[in-house]
This record gives sequence, C-alpha cells and structure tokens, in this order.
Amino acid sequence: MPRFDAPAAEVREYRPEVAEPADFDAFWRSTLAESRALAAAPRLTRVESPLTSVEVYDVEFSGFAGDPVRGWFMVPVGTDGPLPTIVEFIGYGGGRGLPHERLPWVSSGYAYFLMDTRGQGSAWGTGGGTPDPHGTGPSFPGFMTRGIEHHDGYYYRRVFTDAALAIDALRSLDRVDADRVAVCGGSQGGGIAIAAAGLSKGLVGVMPDVPFLCNFERAVGMTDRDPYFEIVRYLSVHRDAAERVFETLSYFDGVNFAKRAVAPAFFSVAMMDPVCPPSTVYAARNHWGASADIVEYAFNEHEGGAGVHWPQQAAWLAERLVPQAA
Amino acid sequence: MPRFDAPAAEVREYRPEVAEPADFDAFWRSTLAESRALAAAPRLTRVESPLTSVEVYDVEFSGFAGDPVRGWFMVPVGTDGPLPTIVEFIGYGGGRGLPHERLPWVSSGYAYFLMDTRGQGSAWGTGGGTPDPHGTGPSFPGFMTRGIEHHDGYYYRRVFTDAALAIDALRSLDRVDADRVAVCGGSQGGGIAIAAAGLSKGLVGVMPDVPFLCNFERAVGMTDRDPYFEIVRYLSVHRDAAERVFETLSYFDGVNFAKRAVAPAFFSVAMMDPVCPPSTVYAARNHWGASADIVEYAFNEHEGGAGVHWPQQAAWLAERLVPQAA
Amino acid sequence: MPRFDAPAAEVREYRPEVAEPADFDAFWRSTLAESRALAAAPRLTRVESPLTSVEVYDVEFSGFAGDPVRGWFMVPVGTDGPLPTIVEFIGYGGGRGLPHERLPWVSSGYAYFLMDTRGQGSAWGTGGGTPDPHGTGPSFPGFMTRGIEHHDGYYYRRVFTDAALAIDALRSLDRVDADRVAVCGGSQGGGIAIAAAGLSKGLVGVMPDVPFLCNFERAVGMTDRDPYFEIVRYLSVHRDAAERVFETLSYFDGVNFAKRAVAPAFFSVAMMDPVCPPSTVYAARNHWGASADIVEYAFNEHEGGAGVHWPQQAAWLAERLVPQAA
Amino acid sequence: MPRFDAPAAEVREYRPEVAEPADFDAFWRSTLAESRALAAAPRLTRVESPLTSVEVYDVEFSGFAGDPVRGWFMVPVGTDGPLPTIVEFIGYGGGRGLPHERLPWVSSGYAYFLMDTRGQGSAWGTGGGTPDPHGTGPSFPGFMTRGIEHHDGYYYRRVFTDAALAIDALRSLDRVDADRVAVCGGSQGGGIAIAAAGLSKGLVGVMPDVPFLCNFERAVGMTDRDPYFEIVRYLSVHRDAAERVFETLSYFDGVNFAKRAVAPAFFSVAMMDPVCPPSTVYAARNHWGASADIVEYAFNEHEGGAGVHWPQQAAWLAERLVPQAA
Amino acid sequence: MPRFDAPAAEVREYRPEVAEPADFDAFWRSTLAESRALAAAPRLTRVESPLTSVEVYDVEFSGFAGDPVRGWFMVPVGTDGPLPTIVEFIGYGGGRGLPHERLPWVSSGYAYFLMDTRGQGSAWGTGGGTPDPHGTGPSFPGFMTRGIEHHDGYYYRRVFTDAALAIDALRSLDRVDADRVAVCGGSQGGGIAIAAAGLSKGLVGVMPDVPFLCNFERAVGMTDRDPYFEIVRYLSVHRDAAERVFETLSYFDGVNFAKRAVAPAFFSVAMMDPVCPPSTVYAARNHWGASADIVEYAFNEHEGGAGVHWPQQAAWLAERLVPQAA
Amino acid sequence: MPRFDAPAAEVREYRPEVAEPADFDAFWRSTLAESRALAAAPRLTRVESPLTSVEVYDVEFSGFAGDPVRGWFMVPVGTDGPLPTIVEFIGYGGGRGLPHERLPWVSSGYAYFLMDTRGQGSAWGTGGGTPDPHGTGPSFPGFMTRGIEHHDGYYYRRVFTDAALAIDALRSLDRVDADRVAVCGGSQGGGIAIAAAGLSKGLVGVMPDVPFLCNFERAVGMTDRDPYFEIVRYLSVHRDAAERVFETLSYFDGVNFAKRAVAPAFFSVAMMDPVCPPSTVYAARNHWGASADIVEYAFNEHEGGAGVHWPQQAAWLAERLVPQAA
Repeated sequence: MPRFDAPAAEVREYRPEVAEPADFDAFWRSTLAESRALAAAPRLTRVESPLTSVEVYDVEFSGFAGDPVRGWFMVPVGTDGPLPTIVEFIGYGGGRGLPHERLPWVSSGYAYFLMDTRGQGSAWGTGGGTPDPHGTGPSFPGFMTRGIEHHDGYYYRRVFTDAALAIDALRSLDRVDADRVAVCGGSQGGGIAIAAAGLSKGLVGVMPDVPFLCNFERAVGMTDRDPYFEIVRYLSVHRDAAERVFETLSYFDGVNFAKRAVAPAFFSVAMMDPVCPPSTVYAARNHWGASADIVEYAFNEHEGGAGVHWPQQAAWLAERLVPQAA
Repeated sequence: MPRFDAPAAEVREYRPEVAEPADFDAFWRSTLAESRALAAAPRLTRVESPLTSVEVYDVEFSGFAGDPVRGWFMVPVGTDGPLPTIVEFIGYGGGRGLPHERLPWVSSGYAYFLMDTRGQGSAWGTGGGTPDPHGTGPSFPGFMTRGIEHHDGYYYRRVFTDAALAIDALRSLDRVDADRVAVCGGSQGGGIAIAAAGLSKGLVGVMPDVPFLCNFERAVGMTDRDPYFEIVRYLSVHRDAAERVFETLSYFDGVNFAKRAVAPAFFSVAMMDPVCPPSTVYAARNHWGASADIVEYAFNEHEGGAGVHWPQQAAWLAERLVPQAA
Repeated sequence: MPRFDAPAAEVREYRPEVAEPADFDAFWRSTLAESRALAAAPRLTRVESPLTSVEVYDVEFSGFAGDPVRGWFMVPVGTDGPLPTIVEFIGYGGGRGLPHERLPWVSSGYAYFLMDTRGQGSAWGTGGGTPDPHGTGPSFPGFMTRGIEHHDGYYYRRVFTDAALAIDALRSLDRVDADRVAVCGGSQGGGIAIAAAGLSKGLVGVMPDVPFLCNFERAVGMTDRDPYFEIVRYLSVHRDAAERVFETLSYFDGVNFAKRAVAPAFFSVAMMDPVCPPSTVYAARNHWGASADIVEYAFNEHEGGAGVHWPQQAAWLAERLVPQAA
Repeated sequence: MPRFDAPAAEVREYRPEVAEPADFDAFWRSTLAESRALAAAPRLTRVESPLTSVEVYDVEFSGFAGDPVRGWFMVPVGTDGPLPTIVEFIGYGGGRGLPHERLPWVSSGYAYFLMDTRGQGSAWGTGGGTPDPHGTGPSFPGFMTRGIEHHDGYYYRRVFTDAALAIDALRSLDRVDADRVAVCGGSQGGGIAIAAAGLSKGLVGVMPDVPFLCNFERAVGMTDRDPYFEIVRYLSVHRDAAERVFETLSYFDGVNFAKRAVAPAFFSVAMMDPVCPPSTVYAARNHWGASADIVEYAFNEHEGGAGVHWPQQAAWLAERLVPQAA
Repeated sequence: MPRFDAPAAEVREYRPEVAEPADFDAFWRSTLAESRALAAAPRLTRVESPLTSVEVYDVEFSGFAGDPVRGWFMVPVGTDGPLPTIVEFIGYGGGRGLPHERLPWVSSGYAYFLMDTRGQGSAWGTGGGTPDPHGTGPSFPGFMTRGIEHHDGYYYRRVFTDAALAIDALRSLDRVDADRVAVCGGSQGGGIAIAAAGLSKGLVGVMPDVPFLCNFERAVGMTDRDPYFEIVRYLSVHRDAAERVFETLSYFDGVNFAKRAVAPAFFSVAMMDPVCPPSTVYAARNHWGASADIVEYAFNEHEGGAGVHWPQQAAWLAERLVPQAA
Repeated sequence: MPRFDAPAAEVREYRPEVAEPADFDAFWRSTLAESRALAAAPRLTRVESPLTSVEVYDVEFSGFAGDPVRGWFMVPVGTDGPLPTIVEFIGYGGGRGLPHERLPWVSSGYAYFLMDTRGQGSAWGTGGGTPDPHGTGPSFPGFMTRGIEHHDGYYYRRVFTDAALAIDALRSLDRVDADRVAVCGGSQGGGIAIAAAGLSKGLVGVMPDVPFLCNFERAVGMTDRDPYFEIVRYLSVHRDAAERVFETLSYFDGVNFAKRAVAPAFFSVAMMDPVCPPSTVYAARNHWGASADIVEYAFNEHEGGAGVHWPQQAAWLAERLVPQAA
C-alpha cells in the first residue's frame, strides 16, 4: 500500500484533541479496585521444555473479576534474586503460544512475562490458553465490538484490567524486582502496554511498537484494514450507534492513557502502516505524560521495525536501568 | 467461482457416512429439558410501524438456559384465530433487522416469526437484538469456534436450543395454529431449520435453502470461504485439536438431525455454491428421515434461488396445508 | 474501503458548477413530446401469486419511441379508489424481478409501481422483462456507454423518457391518485428518480437513495468502481472522445435535473460510498430546486441506509400527504 | 492460475458429443442468403498514414442484414495483381484499432484484411468503428448474452454472418486472389475464424489461436473468467433459461462448424488457459472436418503463443500456397 | 484505479528540486569512457524471416564493460544509403522478442534498432537474449535493487551505458544517418531514452512514453505498483539503507538527465497511471533542457496512448527531419 | 485456499519416478571438489549484542567458487568444548537477519549456525549479508530462473555448494562436534537441507520442514504461488525452453538428493500447503535413503507446524544424540 497518511512532517506534529470522559479516572479506579479485591496469588507451575538456559513457568493469575489469566514466566538459568522484568502483551488474534518463541529478553538477563489475551489466540501462531468467560451483545466477528455499546461491558475493560493485574501479580514474585518492571508489545500489545502505563505506577519503561487502540475518532474509517475496520463494519449495521460507540471507546483510547503516563516511553511507528496509521501512533506519543522517544520506520507497513527494533529497545532500556550517578 | 464439487450426477447421490456420537439423543434430550425447565412465557409487545396490513410484535422468549431471545412476530391485519405459521432462522452474521424487510409470508395469510440469532446481527443488514451471555474459550473471530473444544459449551448448542424453544413459545400463542408450524431459513438459517426439524416434533414442513452446518468432515477444508473456513483457521492454530473439534461438531451436524427428521422437507441447493458446497447439502437431504424434495439451481453460487425460490416454497407448503380428502 | 472523498464538512457544502447545454430544456421537451405522441394506453394484467394481501398487475406501458416497457403494479387488497402512489426505479443491472420482493409500500396503504429498466435485469436478482430494441455504437460492456457519442442516441435518453412516461401512464389509472405520486429509487434508481423529478411536474415527493448519475465531471475518474468506471474504460480506448462524451453526459446529469425540480426531496447519502461518492450526491441535493432533506449514513458504503432508511422515507412522505391545516 | 483442465493426455484426445440442432445447416443457409441478398459492393477509401511500405484502405462492406461493417485492408507497396490474402478476426472487446498495429502479414507479401467486430471495440486497444444497430433483450453486460434467448436474435448470428460476407466482399477485389484466402484470429477471433471455415467454401487455410466459442456445454461453468462466465452470470439470474440458452448456443458452437470445415487448419492451444480451456479447443480441433495441425503452449495462459506463433503460421501457410508438383 | 496524483493543473506545473550528486557528470563521463575503451565493432548477422519488406539483422554490440548486448536492426527492403534511424528501448521485464513484433518505424522508411535490456526478457513477451554477467548484492526479486547500495554497482549504470553505446554502435553503420538518430521507448524504455538523451549528443529527437525512472524521491512510496515498489520492499527490509539508496538513485534519476538534454523531446503521460505517476513524468519534462512537447492521456493508466500515440510520434519526428528553409 | 492436492491417503503413498541425469553424481562431485579446492578457513568475529546467555559470531566462510558467504554462529555462554551443532538454512527471499531472532537451539545446549542465502535477504525479515557475485542470463524476477538454461550456471548450484561447504567449515571449528552435526530449514531452507543431506556424509539428522525444491515436474504448474510459479512464468515467455529447463532442474531435485541421503530424517508437511504441495514433500520423504519420520499438519498452509514443530524436532534429535546402550 502506498503512503496514505498526512505528510511526514505533519504526522510528527500531530497532537489531536481526543474525547475524554469526565469520569475516566473514576471508572478505571473502581474497575481496578473491584478486580483487585477478587485477586488470588498467582500460581506458577514449572514446565519442562528442551530449553536448557531458561526456566519456564506456566502462570495463572487473577485478572478482571478474578478470572484466571495465563502467561509464561521465564528466568535465565543460573541467576537468582530479583531481576529487572519485562512484561509483554500480544498482537491482535494471537495467544501466548509456546515459550521458545519469545527468548530474546530472557536470554539477555531479564525475567520475562508474556500475558495471554483472553479469548484470543486462535487467529495466528500457536494458540492461547485463556478463555473470556463473559458473554457479549451482538457483535461483529472479532473482539473489537464485543460489548462496545457501553464501557462497563466492553471487551478491553477486561483486557486492560488483566494487564494492570498482571503487573501486580508479577511484583509479588521473588524473582521480580518490583521497581524495575517495564512493559512492551506490538500492535494490540502496544496498545495494552500504553493502557498499562496509564493504569500502573512505578514502571521503569514503556515500549509500544506500532501501537493499536489509539485515537479512535481518526483511525475508525481512515483505514479499511482490521481490526479498526471491525468497528466500521459494526457501525455500518448499527447505523444509530456511533455516538454510543465512540463514547465507549473514549474510555479506552490510548491517547487518554498516554496523558496519564509517568514512565518514560520508547515508541516505534511505521510510516506506511495501514493497520495502525502513523498519525494515530504519534497522537499517543505526542500526548505522552513523560519523555517519549520514537523510532520511525519510513518504508514499513505494520511489520514496523520487526527484529531490527529489539536491539534498540534493549539498549534504551539498559540505559534506564543503570544506576544514575548522584 | 467455477464448478468445483463432484460432477452433478455424483453430488445428487452423495450420502456419506457421518460420525454420530453414541449419546447424541441423550445429549439433546437433556439439553432441551434443562432449558425448557427455565423457560418463562413469551412476551409480546405491539410495535408501531408504517405497515398497515400487518400487525407487528416484538417478542422475547426464553432460549437456552432461560436466556432472553428476541424475534419479530407478524400477523396479517384483518385475520383472527390461529393461523398456519412460519418460523424463519437467519443467515450467518445477520440479525432480525426490521419487520418490513420480511413481508412475503405474512402477506400470504401466514403468521410469521423471525428468530434473532444470539450474538449475531452485526455483520450485515440492519442489526440484531439478542446478546449471547455466555463466555468462550480462545476462538477465531466469528461464531463457528466459540466453545468448539467441547459440545457442552459449543455456541450452536445454545442456538439450536433457542430454535427448538422458539417453536415451543410460538405454539403457546393464540394466533398460532400449533399443528401447522413450518420452519425455514437460508444458509445458517437452513442449518438451524434442519436442527429444529430433528429436535421438534409435529412440524408441517421444513424448508432449508442452501443450508450450512451439514457434513462438517467434508465441508471443512473443501472450501476456503467462511464460515466453514473459520474452523480450518482455528485448526491451523490449534494443531492438536482436530479430533476434539470434529467430535464436538458431530453433535451439531445437520446430517445427524436430518436422519431424525419426521416432517417433509423442501430443500434448495446451488450447484456452484462455494460457501455451502452442494454435496454437503445433498448429504443432509439424502439422509432425511421423511420425504425430501429439492430444487437445484445449476448456475448459482450461495445466493441460490433467491427470490425465485419463495413462490415455489409457498406452493409446496400450501399443498401440505390443504386438508387431504379421506 | 476507507473514507476517500473530501472531509465531511466540505462534502456537505459541495455545490459545483456543472456543464449545462444551452438546449437542455428544448432537447427534453422535444424528446418527451415525440414519445408521448407514440404512447398507447397502459395494459394491466392481473397476476396470480401466493400473496393474499396484495393485488398484483403486470403492466406494459409505452416508453421512449413507443417501446413497450414492463413493470409491476400492486395495490393493497381491501382498498378501492385512488391511492397515493409510489413509483420506484431500479439499481444498475437489476430487473423488476418478482412482486413479492417489493412489499413495504403496498403493505402500508400505497399503490406501488416498479418500473423495469430496459435492457437490464440480467446482472443480479431475479430478472427483467424489457428489451431495449435500439442498437448501439461501439460500447464498453454494460449500459453506460451505449450511444454515448451523442445525446440523441444515448441509452439514458430512453430510460429517462421511460420514467417520465411511466408517471403519465400511472396517472391514467383509476387506482392512482394523480396528485399524490412520489418517486424513489436507489443508486441508478435514485438517478432516474431525480431525472423524473426534473421532467415530470406535480410530484408530491422525490426520494433518491445514494443516487447515481450525478456530477459526471467529478465522478468519472474519482472512483474505480463500476458503473462510473465504465466511462473511464471507454475513454481509455476512445482517447479523443472525452469532449463529446462529457457533452453527451451534460444532458443527463442529475445536477441539471435537480436544478429544475419543484417537488420536495428526501435524499440519503453514504459517506464511505465508493460507487456513488458522497460529494456527487450532495452536488445534486445542494442544487435541488425545492426543499431537500438528506440523511447521512456515516459508516456505510453503497448499501447506504438499506432497511433502516425505508421507515424514515415512509414517515417523511406521510407528513407530505397529510392535508395541511389552513 | 495452476493447471486445472484434465491431464494433457486426456485433453489431447477429447472429442465430445456436442448438441447439434437438426436445422443447423438450414438456419445458416437462410441466414447467409438473406444477408447476401442485401449486400452492396464494398467501398474502399485510401487512408493516409506514416507507413511507406503499405497501402491502407478503410473498407466498408455489407454484413448481416446489409449493415455496414468496417475493416482495414492493406497491400504491400510495390506489388500489383491478386495476392494471397489473410482475413483476421479480433478478440473479445477489441476493435480494428489502427492499421500500423497489424503489420506482419502485409510485410510478408500478403494482402491483409482486419474485420471490425460490430458493437465491440471499446474494452481494450484503440477502438472500433462498427455499430451494431440491433437492439437486445435483457442481457448481462457484455456481448455474450445479447439475444441469447433465441438463435434468430443472438448476437453472434450477426457477427458470423459478417465474417462470411467479409470473405465474399474481399473476393470481389482485384488485389485479392479469391482462391488463396486464409482466415485467422485469436480467442474470439479464432472462434469467428472457425465459424467462417464452416460457412465459407474454398479457403486455403484456417488458423485459430486459443479459440473461444467452442464446446459451450463444457466451457460454461468450467471457468469463472469472462466471457464464458457472462453466460453463467446470465443463467444465475434467469434461473429457468438454461435449456433455451444452450439450444441457442448449439447453433453457434465452434465444434459444429469444425465438423463442416473442409479447409486445412492450424490451431494453437494454451494448456493453462483459464479463458478458453484447452479441452474446449481440442474439442473443435478433434472434430475438424479436414487436416488440423495444432501447436501446444504448455505453460501459457490465454496469451498462448503470442509473437512466437506467427512465424509458425507464416511457415505453415506458405507451404499451403506453394504450387504442388504434379 | 481512480485518479490519485495531484490535480491536473498542479501536475502540469510540477517541477521539483531533485537531489543531484556533485560528481554526476564526472561519474557518467568516466563510466562511458571506460566502456567505450572496451568496445568492439558491432556484429550484424542477417536473419531469415517471413518478412519480405524488411531486412532483419541480429546485432551484437559492446555495452557496459565490453559486455555483448543484443538487438534487432531492421531496414526497409528497397532502400539504400544512410537512413534516419530510430533506437527503441524496452519496458521493464521484456526482451527484444521477435522482429515482426516491431514493424511500424521500419515500414515508414526508417532504419530501426531495438536494444535488448540485459538480464531482462523473461517476464512478458517473447524473450530476451542478453545476459547480465555481473553479480549482485542482496536484492529484492527484480532488477530495481540490484547493486542499489552504491552507484558503481547499480544495475542501471550498466543499462544506461548500454544505451549510450548502442547509439555509438549504430552511428558506425553505413545504413544509419548518424545525424538523424532519434530515441524512444515506453515506461522503462522511456526512462532509458531520457538517460540516453542526457548522455548522447546530436540526437534529432527523444520520445519517452509514460517514462519510468524519474523523480525517485516522490515515486518511491507514492505508488504500490512495481517496479517502484520493489525499492520500497527493499527498504522495508534494509531499514537503514534509505540514505544510501537514494544517493545511488540520484545518479540515475531521469530528472537529472532531462536537465542535460539538448535534443527536442516529445513525451506522453497518462494522467491515471499508477505505475509511473503523472507528476513524476512532468518532473522530467518540466526540467527538460530543450523544447519538450507532451501529449496527455487523461483517462489512461500505464498503457498510456498505446497505438494511438505512434502516429503522433511519427508526425512529430517527420517535422524534425524535414530540412528547414534558410 | 481449500485442499487441492490428491486425497491424503494417496499423497502419503506418493513416490514418483523423477528424472535423474546420468552424470548427477559426477556433476556434484566435481562441483564440490572445485569449490573445496578454493576454500579458505572460516573467519569468526565476535559480535556484541544485548544477549547475555549466548556468544555470537559473525562467520565468513568460502562457498561456491571460493565466494565469501556469511552466517551467524552461536554457542551457549558457560559451555566449552565441542557441542552437537545445528545448521539451519533459510526460506526463500530471507536473509540471516539478526542473531536474537533465532535462539531456541542455542538456548537448548546446541551450537547453532545460520547460513545466509547468497543474493537473497531483501524480500522479508531483517536482511542478508551475502552477495551473489555471478551474473545471469535473462531471468524472471526472483532467483528460481537465474541461469536455469544450464545446470552449470544455475543459481542453486552455488547455493547447494555453499551448504555443503558450510558443513565443512563448521566441522573445522573447535566448538563443533563434527560427528554430531544436524541440518534443518523450512521451505527453501528445507530444500537446501535435503540437498546438504545428499551431498554431505556423516550428518546425525536432517529436519526439513515443508520443503521446497522437490519433484519439479509435478510442482511446476500445479500451483500458481511463487516461487515454483516463477518457473512457469519463465517458461511462458521462453516457450521453447521446457526441455532444457527441466533437464537443469533434474540436477537440483530434492528427490534425487533424498535417494542418496544416509542420515535419518524428520520431515514436516502441511496438507493444505499451496506453496510446497504436500505430494511433492512426500515425494522426497518416500524416496529418502534412510529412516524418515514425518509430521503432518492437516489444516495448515505453508506456515506448517510453525512454533509447534520445534519441540518435536528437539525431542527427535535429542533421541538421536543419546549414546545407545550396547
């Protein structure tokens, strides 16, 4: 697909007004409080695998409404004590798959946690293991419009809560250095990381790649690629729902979380990305509440930096973890 | 798409062995019994519309697990007493929409009921009004793989139960002649009609058009069109699930319901249909437990007979409703 | 397809200069006069159908050059005397099909006429019954470029004349209230309705949905969807024909008919419509010679409002038909 | 597109039974007789062009029903007297275009005539100049279904008659050696050449490339590429028309003309051709009434041999034109 | 594809700043000098063909680095002495094919030479006969990115040198009037013609049609059609290469050759061309160093004027060749 | 894409006759001997990376004709002495990318080498670093047809030689246990692994996934997906080249290498794979010269087992490496 967003110079400065509900903070405060009240301690089960340099644990922690959520937790063999820790969230449709598919961080001295996305994990990759035990109103195939008629029942309320509680759960582990937790993810995973950065305090870094779930008013209708287009398709059937739908989405817009972020961020953006248009990524980055670096991939679509980006993340994060001279 | 199924002569004779679980009847008996035990009387609300020749009612009846399910009930103005009644089920992704979109039967002297499909109604048309308040395991976008790992939690367990209970509910209405109820539907609606014919007794006719949900072992992988292809996509991620998935599907295969049908049937099939391949339609028709007429549309894809078919249905059904001379 | 036209605010104000031939009125005056001189009285034949609440008539009336044109005329059973009457025109490629496919208006107390489109009726639906007995110069497959090198031989000269003479013919029927005739149609049918509104006097309302055939200078080349694109394809072969072709089209541009309309209008427009771009719809609406309401469907493509729109039309028209207090 | 027809060995032997109407010969005899009775002498107009080695004439001759049909006639500069002559027919949708586009034969010592296809010439290339002054019943966009409900009004009745009368007209010219006329053409042009070979006597050779219009019963529905697929689309709307349509087509099937051919033939066929499937080409070749050579292009789609084939045609024909030793 | 470039009025005036390396002239001077030093005299071999009005020669001349390059040379039978001569370059992926495919110029009194494009000639048409005996670094499939990391090894350095040396070689032939050589070509052939016009002196005319290889900074990323998109794909993998790649391309940009051209030009441009966007064509034309006429094809994509354009070229060139009155 | 190959039962037994040149062994013997004679010792350069559990080396070894070929060599930190070693080859179009993208084997106690594919590495992923310094005849874009007219110059002669010499080079390293080297790869990488298994002795295991480059006579034309389709495209232009091309390919057919393999194999195959059709994979597996296990992925396309397959490979290989009890 050719370049289609505004010229690069405009995109870089794009910082839109985004609808923000008056009770945004109250909504999330009570949402988290309710689920935290239902949370049990995470359960870790050691998993055998061919990997000899990594210890692998199957984790089950309490997410939204106390629902069990799965993930992989890995630590390097031959280390002990609390480690700086990475929490990663997954792209749309994917599941946590298998541990050997996600080795770079744990091979670099970090504890690493990969959170399953409830209900997802059947569209690509090697599967997910977390159901979403909540029903839904009429929805377009996919996850974007489940419960979209009201913020209380919207699917991402559950997912973002899972993310915040994953961080809680990890911090309770003795192999995790609670003060040195960073979050990351690509696409949907980047959107969840942004939400986590708005909901969780004390993160050491936030690394969203080509993030999804930002600036819905612009994104919905600007591209005909899923998953944003799922919302267009829903609205094309529910022709009177636009106001309600965008009100719901305002509780979940990455821009509103970005404003509340206090940890430094390291974004990536792909300037020809038809799935997560670059201006919508800049919308979140330019509203970020703390320092926010960004790497542009000028000729990439949604694959963005792919493997080229991780070493840059590793370098950026390493610098944040070094004790600063007084 | 060109012709792709077996030659027409073979297709017409196709009558495959289809896996049937030993507890098929027990499963459905207990499923229906449990939900019937939870059913309340249907609630009808008169709806204003521009239509002057039709009375329209918004219906809410108790479906699976007592869940409220919606539908439109219409009777011709100027009639009274019990009428022969049509129950129609809807194609995949659609909802009940608006009453004026479905006028032929009620304009021909019938009472008419259109059942919403829970959770659906957001992919085309003018919307649905029935949520599906049950969660799901990891699933591919769409409805085909929700709960597909076990027959107890499979989505179509709920939908088929809704269909059987819709017939129960209608028969309780004074404008419905309980002995003269026929069911129909196209595509998914045809598949539901077949299931209803296997689950409900005393129907006067069953009219499935280009029905879906028949002969899964052949259909899954034979075509790359959704919704059958959703199952392929699920299995392509959950590479070890095929046995479990096909076991689940065996409880929902139209062929197994067809064997149990006792009401006469009037099928249609499109010989170039890439969505519901013609041989899978003949699989159900050739296993039908009673007389089963069929109209072939030789050069059509999934649109089948479209508007050309309804007059033939109307004629076929009229003949079934005429009191037979002794 | 994503949004592609100008921003909504611009689209709504779009009111272009459109080429208008000096002899536009003379051309149409003589065209209609010549065909009216050849017109015979319409012939109505009662048709049997399963419908019990509707009387159906197969109509043949005299269109352009006295050519026989077909249509369905329906009146509600149990009414008599002149009724307010709807005339509907059909979308590109379709034919009049079967009567039971078009029941809402006649189920709401109106007499209803559906005009076949000459030569069309073989691309979708259930068929048409009206030949176009006039040959054509070299043309691109389809109807858009038949005779496009001169306005005298252009295909739509015949179709628009058919439309005007359909209204004449209907007004001669005793079940039609000649003072309360409204026209409607979607896509091509909307374009024909606009032309009819420019050519026929005394209409009570005009209801074009996502109309085609408006503002050719903008539409041709703005979209690559047929049927506008048929003209691009023709011009890509006949590289010297652009001036002649656009001169021809200026006699048939909906904008030029809109300027001449005297009846109130009720438009619909789909803001993501790649077939009939929204600005070209607003071009006609913003030039309308009388009051012109419009409903926007913000997230729809060419399906526009579909079934959601008819109740709004019915309400709008009902208001126009109520005798006004003095 | 991958190989899709039967295995090559089967394709080469394929010689199907094809429906042949009892009055096939009578129909064509009377058709030609009627049009010949209306024929005027061809008119040639010398055309200026940059070409210095070729004399170019714009020809108008009398085709079906005396309708004027155009073509280009070219002879090499510096020759005189009667020359062996090639008549070429054009592929679907194209027109005669411009003389400099067709130089090989005339640059090789032949007189050359290119016949325009009535009504066509607007889909690709540089245009056609021959209208089709006959109207049509409801038809699918394109030419395949114009008048297809009866053989008297079918479009190709006119085209094939044009072809036969083109040969008549040419033979009347003093630069044409009437005993040494050969016909050729690709795709539709090949189909017309086959028809001409069945209708005209005394041809010295027939060279159809990847011919269209052969073995309709197999071709219609075997491929989803136009133009065969136009017939499928027509039948998908006119669901009751198949018998009539195939009866019509039996008067125009290349196989029935092939049986009647008495001139030697030189075919080409592309074994991966999705437009004119190779078995349908062999159907005509294997029924040919005289010797019929064929060149197979094993890895080509509808482009067939393209420029590689002409030298082979030239060599084949040259051999046919050499006076045989006694 | 719909119109997508800037509005026509802007496109016509578009005259961008284009990066030009300081050593552009030095680079090309030394490149040509080195290859000229290695050049042997061209070898012509008379080829038999069915053509009787044309003498055909298979030519091998020394291109870049003395590599043998092939071409067809044709002169009209019956002429002698030096003739005005056309040199044509070929579109992307094609080869010189067969002589009878390119007859118009030689049938109009010109000597004609068609240069093969090294390594190409296997993507369409009837083949090429010239290898490219130089290896390449990692490249995207195709020719656009072979050696693109440095101008010394870039593929088009070899091709453009071939073009300049083709002109040298031709001028050494006694049938070629060295003062009346013109160059032409479409798409890539047009781009090569422009380069030749910048590298060779004394041409009588330059006729680029819908030329490729102009204004890379705009073209790369503006369209998603190959071959420009090959560069995007390369850059999407080699994410750090953009600066190097565009530096390389600046040595090969048609705009930089256009500035240096001294022969009059006759361009064509297609205003809906998604392969060679019209603004990039105007970029070269508006920078042309001499008079530069242009013909616009308003409704064409990359096919441009096709056969309609050649007569205009022939007329334009004829005028340039007429001796001017003193 | 739906299932398209023969029925599974047939596919599993498929063991075709495949053309084998008489001098197959001689050709490869001399090819390897010549290149081995030019080989220098491999050069390893330690590379810094964020990885703390892996030592990474950039390797340059001598491949075909002594050409330098690159790769990554990795060993687990904290090990010493010779390790069992995996050599992996890469899928079509990809390059070696970055070390952290390939961690599973080295995280499981193996030394690991990833060989770059000369000339490739620009179509997906994060790039390659090995040029192919050999020119080519006319070729279709891509690598499949470079030099395909003769086996001496065919591209894969160089690649397969690189693979054999990579194994030589690795065995010379002190961290590699020369008796415990296994090869693997997916798609093209699987095809190279098969070739390596036919050319190198003493391998402990061969693990080809959905391998490409097997049974060309069947594959070429059976699918329209690249890269096999590149050969079809080449043959569609070079219409006389089929015999030469298939003779060339017979020197490179995986089936002929499979016959010569002496190490045990562990294949995977995807039963809906349109890129490497399953029967062509079974062709190699069923001709394998030693034991050959295979895992079928019934509902996968070319992604095959993806991450699900590696643990099975690891288990299979571990069993092969365990010292067997006497």
